[in-house]
Amino acid sequence: MSLLVVGSVAFDAVETPFGKRERMLGGSATHFGLSASFFTDVRVVGVVGGDFGEEEMSVFGERGIDTDDLERVEGGKTFFWSGRYDFDLNTAHTLDTQLNVFADFKPKLSDESRRARMVFLGNIQPDLQREVREQVRGAELVALDTMNYWITSVPDAVREAISAVDVVIINDAEARQLTGEPNLIKAARKILSWGPRALVVKRGEYGAAMFTAESYFAIPAYPLEAVFDPTGAGDTFAGGFMGYLASRDPIDDDTLRRAIIFGSVMASFNVEEFGTERVRRLTHEEINRRFRDFKRMTHFEEIPFERAASGKSGV
Amino acid sequence: MSLLVVGSVAFDAVETPFGKRERMLGGSATHFGLSASFFTDVRVVGVVGGDFGEEEMSVFGERGIDTDDLERVEGGKTFFWSGRYDFDLNTAHTLDTQLNVFADFKPKLSDESRRARMVFLGNIQPDLQREVREQVRGAELVALDTMNYWITSVPDAVREAISAVDVVIINDAEARQLTGEPNLIKAARKILSWGPRALVVKRGEYGAAMFTAESYFAIPAYPLEAVFDPTGAGDTFAGGFMGYLASRDPIDDDTLRRAIIFGSVMASFNVEEFGTERVRRLTHEEINRRFRDFKRMTHFEEIPFERAASGKSGV
Repeated sequence: MSLLVVGSVAFDAVETPFGKRERMLGGSATHFGLSASFFTDVRVVGVVGGDFGEEEMSVFGERGIDTDDLERVEGGKTFFWSGRYDFDLNTAHTLDTQLNVFADFKPKLSDESRRARMVFLGNIQPDLQREVREQVRGAELVALDTMNYWITSVPDAVREAISAVDVVIINDAEARQLTGEPNLIKAARKILSWGPRALVVKRGEYGAAMFTAESYFAIPAYPLEAVFDPTGAGDTFAGGFMGYLASRDPIDDDTLRRAIIFGSVMASFNVEEFGTERVRRLTHEEINRRFRDFKRMTHFEEIPFERAASGKSGV
Repeated sequence: MSLLVVGSVAFDAVETPFGKRERMLGGSATHFGLSASFFTDVRVVGVVGGDFGEEEMSVFGERGIDTDDLERVEGGKTFFWSGRYDFDLNTAHTLDTQLNVFADFKPKLSDESRRARMVFLGNIQPDLQREVREQVRGAELVALDTMNYWITSVPDAVREAISAVDVVIINDAEARQLTGEPNLIKAARKILSWGPRALVVKRGEYGAAMFTAESYFAIPAYPLEAVFDPTGAGDTFAGGFMGYLASRDPIDDDTLRRAIIFGSVMASFNVEEFGTERVRRLTHEEINRRFRDFKRMTHFEEIPFERAASGKSGV
């Protein structure tokens, strides 16, 4: 299998200024998996309860996602998250979190999962991320995401998990919090010094940036007039990024740059409707059209300034 | 003359976490003029007091800036601004504002100034901006900047001034405030509907964006590990943008895009040291080197996604 994701599969209740959903499919592994499935074969490692039905499973099935390692606890309930977004759609206000079966989640990897070429560790407890990382020693590229909750409660564990992976994908506030550096460039250099080969920084409506030892790449977000529901945007970004990488060989700087674009494209679709609704019915044509839009909106000719023959302006 | 700027010439006292200056040359027309002077001939319309000495005048002189329309009120004092920046260098805390001779500033344009090909109206009172705009009927391109103070106190006058110019250059918070639209894309469309042909939005550490009826262009900021003093960054950006435009003919979408890059390049130098210190000793080679850096940090190959022959990933 080419791409493995370990993370949450959940039910979300979400309210935004544009509407609400009482119970919809969510979770980091769900959003990541759906997004990545447009680019490569995906396998999900997670846990759900007995309340997780055929309808939810079919969402994975329709996208050809392998759920053999999606554990089912018959007597338990699926992870439930409830949140609200105000007009500032950048900030989620958590109303309720019921970990349920996710509280005791111990990722169990089948032999096939252990052979994945690439692995994404969703924002589970950082020690669990390291345990999974140990089990995929042969993977060509392992990436992780984390969140402010872990950075606040177990910063050392987050740092150790980071030092064990190739790529870190986090948002800019988390990068600053994690390093105690208000300047993002300094924060990025510090994180890279812990071991990863690349740091991808998600900046919400301001786009995304990627730092490696030799290169810096940054792009704006796709300009959207309406953001309906940002839930899952970060994982959808990561899914597009990793899914595209898993479809390529070798992985060089050019590939990483295009992966940032595909991640941004997928995230831009995700926020246009609630939960997984928009991504589920996407087409490759729509994805590639928006990829080309990104080129158009960032392109300029590399023509340095030269003094006009008639003018002056010299020093 | 090719480029005229109308705005403030001032003394600034600035304190940042990295140091302080008790009295340094500042003002919108100063920062704009110095920046633009690397690209074209610049003429400044403004007012100073009797305390404005040879040393300050020589800063304009060294860059070949025409100060024939820089009025001098012998008995008066030059506009003085004092501010402080904390570690969040995005927000200026004003400690003192003494308008002095600037309080009664009535821009007086000589015949030569009226014949400018391009004009930049710094953030003076919007009715004054309109009066100046009336005097340069023949200008090919007139741009203006404004600020939250005018948007709060005289929003209708700001709107009328905007409807009389070709290009508006403001920051993103101002665009949202001016239109009452939290979504920047909607805010931009509203501003364009009032008349200007292009809207340039400055986003500080997140870069800049340009909106026209047909096109959207956005770029990140130059990645700086240390910002010493952001005072004048916006006007330095505008100076690079307008200065480059004034050096080109005709002005098409490609030219406007490169102008955004040159504006960003100039602003990135400005914040590296206090006030005008860095820009004053810039070279064209340094400017072009950073222009090329912008190309490197935003470039990606336009290769849409295609399913690998061996893989799947289809819908």
